[in-house]
Amino acid sequence: VEAPRRGDLPPEELRALARELADWISDYLERVGTLPVSARVSPGDVRAALPATPPEEGESMQDVLADFRTLVMPGITHWNHPAFFGYFANTGSGPGILAEMLTAALNANAMVWRSSPAATELEEVATDWLRALLGLPPGFEGVINDTASSSTLYALAAARRLAYPEVARRGLFAEPPGSVYASEHAHMSVERAVVALGLGREGYRTVAAGEDLGMSARALSAALAQDVAAGVRPVAIVATLGTTSSAAVDPVRRIAELAREHGVWLHVDAAYAGSAAIVPELRGPMAGWELADSIVVNPHKWLFTPLDCSVLFCSRPEDLASTFRLTPEYLRAPSGGDARDLMDYGLALGRRFRALKLWFVLRYFGREGLIERLRLHVRMAQELAGWIREEEGWELAAPQRFSLVAFRYAPAGASPSEVDALNLEILERVNASGEAFLTHTTLGGRVAIRVAIGNVRTTRDHVARTWALLTGAAAASTRSAEDD
Amino acid sequence: VEAPRRGDLPPEELRALARELADWISDYLERVGTLPVSARVSPGDVRAALPATPPEEGESMQDVLADFRTLVMPGITHWNHPAFFGYFANTGSGPGILAEMLTAALNANAMVWRSSPAATELEEVATDWLRALLGLPPGFEGVINDTASSSTLYALAAARRLAYPEVARRGLFAEPPGSVYASEHAHMSVERAVVALGLGREGYRTVAAGEDLGMSARALSAALAQDVAAGVRPVAIVATLGTTSSAAVDPVRRIAELAREHGVWLHVDAAYAGSAAIVPELRGPMAGWELADSIVVNPHKWLFTPLDCSVLFCSRPEDLASTFRLTPEYLRAPSGGDARDLMDYGLALGRRFRALKLWFVLRYFGREGLIERLRLHVRMAQELAGWIREEEGWELAAPQRFSLVAFRYAPAGASPSEVDALNLEILERVNASGEAFLTHTTLGGRVAIRVAIGNVRTTRDHVARTWALLTGAAAASTRSAEDD
Repeated sequence: VEAPRRGDLPPEELRALARELADWISDYLERVGTLPVSARVSPGDVRAALPATPPEEGESMQDVLADFRTLVMPGITHWNHPAFFGYFANTGSGPGILAEMLTAALNANAMVWRSSPAATELEEVATDWLRALLGLPPGFEGVINDTASSSTLYALAAARRLAYPEVARRGLFAEPPGSVYASEHAHMSVERAVVALGLGREGYRTVAAGEDLGMSARALSAALAQDVAAGVRPVAIVATLGTTSSAAVDPVRRIAELAREHGVWLHVDAAYAGSAAIVPELRGPMAGWELADSIVVNPHKWLFTPLDCSVLFCSRPEDLASTFRLTPEYLRAPSGGDARDLMDYGLALGRRFRALKLWFVLRYFGREGLIERLRLHVRMAQELAGWIREEEGWELAAPQRFSLVAFRYAPAGASPSEVDALNLEILERVNASGEAFLTHTTLGGRVAIRVAIGNVRTTRDHVARTWALLTGAAAASTRSAEDD
Repeated sequence: VEAPRRGDLPPEELRALARELADWISDYLERVGTLPVSARVSPGDVRAALPATPPEEGESMQDVLADFRTLVMPGITHWNHPAFFGYFANTGSGPGILAEMLTAALNANAMVWRSSPAATELEEVATDWLRALLGLPPGFEGVINDTASSSTLYALAAARRLAYPEVARRGLFAEPPGSVYASEHAHMSVERAVVALGLGREGYRTVAAGEDLGMSARALSAALAQDVAAGVRPVAIVATLGTTSSAAVDPVRRIAELAREHGVWLHVDAAYAGSAAIVPELRGPMAGWELADSIVVNPHKWLFTPLDCSVLFCSRPEDLASTFRLTPEYLRAPSGGDARDLMDYGLALGRRFRALKLWFVLRYFGREGLIERLRLHVRMAQELAGWIREEEGWELAAPQRFSLVAFRYAPAGASPSEVDALNLEILERVNASGEAFLTHTTLGGRVAIRVAIGNVRTTRDHVARTWALLTGAAAASTRSAEDD
């Protein structure tokens, strides 16, 4: 066997290229606000621009980076754009980017303590700092997963094990049916987890929400009573603090009481809004979440940490670990030891060193820096909500909460279906401008436009300009309807 | 609300820091081979060195980076060290590191096509390139997950849905029990997935392996027949190409025939060894895998791509997507469109732009570069196996396969339990040297030391030095036993 001609990038070449990218990234972040937010491409465009087959011989990284700039970049929707208000806006912040450079270079796997002690212990430290910032009691232990979907799946798996103590051994086959309860506005990941766990959609009870779009505790209580009477076993209740559609808040304290009464696991989905608990005056809606068995908060949503970083807090961590623990010999430390192996707290075995970026972000911003930024985001959302309330023909589609505003243009005389079509048209016009990016939802079966504020570079001007785009689009859409 | 004093890192500061890290990373990769491979810390050391509470005010990134160097680095086990031979060795290569810088800066989420078209389409392109390199037919479509544990979970969830067509609706409660079949040497992630899916460990059939440690097709056939006769429903068969303990290979063609006969989903776990199929003369053991329904190959293991990057290939992608598809309004594109939304192919909703690093790696190395490197790794493992065979008292614990060698020191006259203790002692001595890092397993209930080669910087000298350390440790351990 001859020596390979191709090694890793020689250090000097890597140094030069990484420096080049250091420049590119800081230039990019400086100018990202001037780019069209969403990609101007049609399905298949990017794929068609790339060769159908891999290269036979290695290529120069300069060529690869040139293609990245000219072929890939036009297809990027810029989540780091300050007027990206779709889904939940987020930030790949500078400190987070620096951490990801190091994470990739170290390439450590925090699956067991021994496989990289600092990666495990920094995860303990960074998640405990976050716990303290959120005002949660020390009984909550955190682990970092990729996404809230995974965090929720793991929490519900632990709940299922408590509801069905023999499930790990004999499965669900001989068991009475069980149910997971969540608001009709809960995130899709809850239903997907319920199905994955073998409980079936029939075991997924969507509980009606009240006028404020928070789960009705009375409806929950009735659903629990009905199920228990029918021999259906309550497995878990999921309370959402900050729903995706409208950032609505379930009455978590009242729900916690019901969970306790029925001996059911309470999981809190605070993936987006949980970060608000860092701000003293925004913590109110979370009151009672400290009674939960598990809580998910995603720093990659509203805490300036690049994807992916979802923290699952659990107040009974041993129940979580017991659900998954299975240590084959090839992962056992020869000398045993009493260190925590974080692979026990979920299903993913490979675990990137994600704690580093969370730690960098928390240190760089500090508690005060986080508070000021989150507070500003909420203030901007409130101001936008005020403009909407005051403008003829516009209405909030839900009570304004946290940094999210859900609203619609509903001019007098338009039918609900006309209003729906009109708002989708307005949305398309705004997004086509390239100056802002918004997404929609439905609330009560009717289309609502969402503005989700969450990027550290977003200023009042970005929000004001988006509002001008919205009213302009509404006028243009109305004119074009009249021309028909 | 006053303007926050703390914004993101100003562009010029980010530029300077990213350049500093560009230097640090290239220096690190140049000297990583001179560092002790595994961290010299005890449980709690790193945690104790860090403040128990987060900072009130934001800190300078220079301070944060200084702490990273002095407090975190000593606790890092260096997976990028060329003499890291534990678990499955891997590489955070230069092209992969550069890609991760860009991924963090763009912070795009490839959950739906529209949320970042290029991230979705590059994932299609890069996984299709990998498919072609592996010699799999075009019917296989790839998606990138975080880990093989997730990929296997998703594949088995699709299998479960075909075995129980009503599972998504009514769960497993009213169903006859079902089974998943895998070799006694299969990875723990299969069992964890079976438990997560609600099938229970009683539904996990470990099939005996033959002398070559590959699954016995006869035993599998018998287990299937027995279950069918008993009314147990076969759900899936998992064939492993390259087990974790010894890189053993299940007879996949014969298993595929049995899967077809019983109408059962065949999932192939080639997370580690699948990459070998890029090398023509190493493809033999994979013959028949093209008959599988799903195959997992992890470029973050033996394909020079930083954590995390696990590719799940599926020859019936619509069955995979139908298992998970659930598109709430807030993720729907207003204009519909026929683009693929990759969130449909698994449970994680947030999806990092992982395709970029795979694309960079495949382009930088090219088919030839990959072949030469993989070939060298296998050649070094074969050479080490030769030294072991020839050395008095040493033995291979399993047939040598791919780039993995499993072996033990078993001097004449020592009892099996003495041999076990001796090998764990040898392992500890070698790891304590700091010059190499190895892990162990058990095969046939007896301890075996593993040397897993997979880093792009590993040379014959690293392997030879490790062998010298092993024989030296064996001599020292024998002497110390005689002194007792």
